[in-house]
Amino acid sequence: MTESYEASLTRSQALEQRLAEHPEEFRMLTGDRPTGALHVGHYFGSIANRLRLQESGADIMVLIADYQVITDREVAGDLAGNTRNLLLDGLAAGIDPERSTVFAHSAVPALNQLMLPFLSLVSVAELQRNPTVKDEAATAGITSISGLMLTYPVHQAADILFCKGNIVPVGRDQLPHIEQTRVIARRFNERYGPTFPEPEALLSSVPLLLGTDGTKMSKSKGNVVELRMSADQTAKQVKGAKTDSDRHITFDPEHRPEVSNLLTLAALCEGGDPAAIAEEIGDGGGGALKKRVTDALNTYFAPLRERRAALEADPSYVDGVLAAGNARANEIAEATLAEVREAMGSIRL
Amino acid sequence: MTESYEASLTRSQALEQRLAEHPEEFRMLTGDRPTGALHVGHYFGSIANRLRLQESGADIMVLIADYQVITDREVAGDLAGNTRNLLLDGLAAGIDPERSTVFAHSAVPALNQLMLPFLSLVSVAELQRNPTVKDEAATAGITSISGLMLTYPVHQAADILFCKGNIVPVGRDQLPHIEQTRVIARRFNERYGPTFPEPEALLSSVPLLLGTDGTKMSKSKGNVVELRMSADQTAKQVKGAKTDSDRHITFDPEHRPEVSNLLTLAALCEGGDPAAIAEEIGDGGGGALKKRVTDALNTYFAPLRERRAALEADPSYVDGVLAAGNARANEIAEATLAEVREAMGSIRL
Repeated sequence: MTESYEASLTRSQALEQRLAEHPEEFRMLTGDRPTGALHVGHYFGSIANRLRLQESGADIMVLIADYQVITDREVAGDLAGNTRNLLLDGLAAGIDPERSTVFAHSAVPALNQLMLPFLSLVSVAELQRNPTVKDEAATAGITSISGLMLTYPVHQAADILFCKGNIVPVGRDQLPHIEQTRVIARRFNERYGPTFPEPEALLSSVPLLLGTDGTKMSKSKGNVVELRMSADQTAKQVKGAKTDSDRHITFDPEHRPEVSNLLTLAALCEGGDPAAIAEEIGDGGGGALKKRVTDALNTYFAPLRERRAALEADPSYVDGVLAAGNARANEIAEATLAEVREAMGSIRL
Repeated sequence: MTESYEASLTRSQALEQRLAEHPEEFRMLTGDRPTGALHVGHYFGSIANRLRLQESGADIMVLIADYQVITDREVAGDLAGNTRNLLLDGLAAGIDPERSTVFAHSAVPALNQLMLPFLSLVSVAELQRNPTVKDEAATAGITSISGLMLTYPVHQAADILFCKGNIVPVGRDQLPHIEQTRVIARRFNERYGPTFPEPEALLSSVPLLLGTDGTKMSKSKGNVVELRMSADQTAKQVKGAKTDSDRHITFDPEHRPEVSNLLTLAALCEGGDPAAIAEEIGDGGGGALKKRVTDALNTYFAPLRERRAALEADPSYVDGVLAAGNARANEIAEATLAEVREAMGSIRL
């Protein structure tokens, strides 16, 4: 049974405490699917938290989940290009290869092999009950669920357990996956002897950011500010943002979601308070609000964009980061797989 | 849609013809799960056919499916011991490491990684319709199907396609699996470009052999003659076989299944005809029949048993065969995985 959200939250807060005191006890698994360039929603929703955790001193594993791109779409797209962009965005944002290991699914066979023993530890009925799988299938507009979509939580368990990750930063909707990973770890340990930690969810309190049209951010809807955009592109994107007819700017997320969303964005970039920003703008209307947001974004992301341009000019460095990350991930995965073979009594030669 | 059995049979016969003429065009995947020692049912049901195909000159890949042991049981048993016994039985029977590559699932990560892209190519509904999965689940008395059981046909596709096997010797009940592999190969090729052959089933006409109690052979029922048994153990096992009250021995599979089964066994070992053997025994009764069967088994399997004893005394040779087979399988799997990554556009470093 999945515990209540409140219980998860309490556990997560205690975890933050332990992490601050003993970062060396933690290995964290986090990652993204390479489906396109990162946008400000990704940045404030997960990258910023990842950077904070990197600062904590825990060992960070950053997965580029290239095999998970095809869970909910038929065409993988430009996997190599999207992977490079993801890497560029991450490094430009501050992911430090000295402290974080960046690697790709498709490059770590021993990680993927863990799918096999793990699949034997879960029932089909259990997988079909996973609410996130159901939701994700519905979001992607899928009537016929693929084998990869159904078994996605098992693959995610392999992602987390291959490196014996004991902490996973997630949003509330990902809690069932973490629970499934805990169940798999527990069952493996019960059947074959203690091998895996039961990872814990670190819940991040993510500000809800909408796209510039007031709906959920989505690259395909063209309603996002990408990290890699120029100052001009950013201005243009924000200029097209939806507001409302009331010239007096107030922070009122319930009744004025679009205006409040822009205020939140400005506040996140400025490190300020959205209500205070609204007061400063007052009767300035949508034009003044948009100017403020554009300036805030361009100021905040200017150093990131500069670093990104420099990195883009040095592809061998960027490829080298991933190659080194893949090598470390393979080393870790092979060591874990060797333990798994030993525990299961597979023949060793 | 699965084609009719008759169509499969016709195709299989044409395949035998092409195999005889151009063995160099074929790579064959065959294998067993290491659940215990091989018995005469395995021998006449598949090993004999495998030896015949080895003689043909095709490239033979013999899989020890150690991860498939846990599809339908919770405990893997003595995997390493069972793997060694399977290897000893195979080598003693005549599997020649110079012509056949013997390898274990758990030792070939790049093969197992193919599960991921392949799982994206099949729907859950499709997997649930697979009649062999349904049957195997029912046989194993399983009400709750595991993820590994459901995805077993996808794993089997990885087994066959990792080495671009184009021919698979199977019994009739395995035809749906081969069809699933063909579908996966076709879909992959359509989506990502020509990569895999669509393997064909080579149907073997297997004599139906029963256990000594007249029911299906099963090690757990103690109704089998294992290849590794001594002459005395064989005599004891056959002595306990069920016959009927009619002293006059006749070959009548429909009305006298137990007696006819023993006659078939003697005929297979002697290379003779069961009806003729029955005539020779005539009124000798069950005692004479059992003596004939025991002698036939012990004569036929004496060289195999002698080789087995010699091999057992040389564990480093036997382990070396598997190590070399695993190494070759890994080389092949890594080359195929590299092609798959290239076809899918995964990042290559």
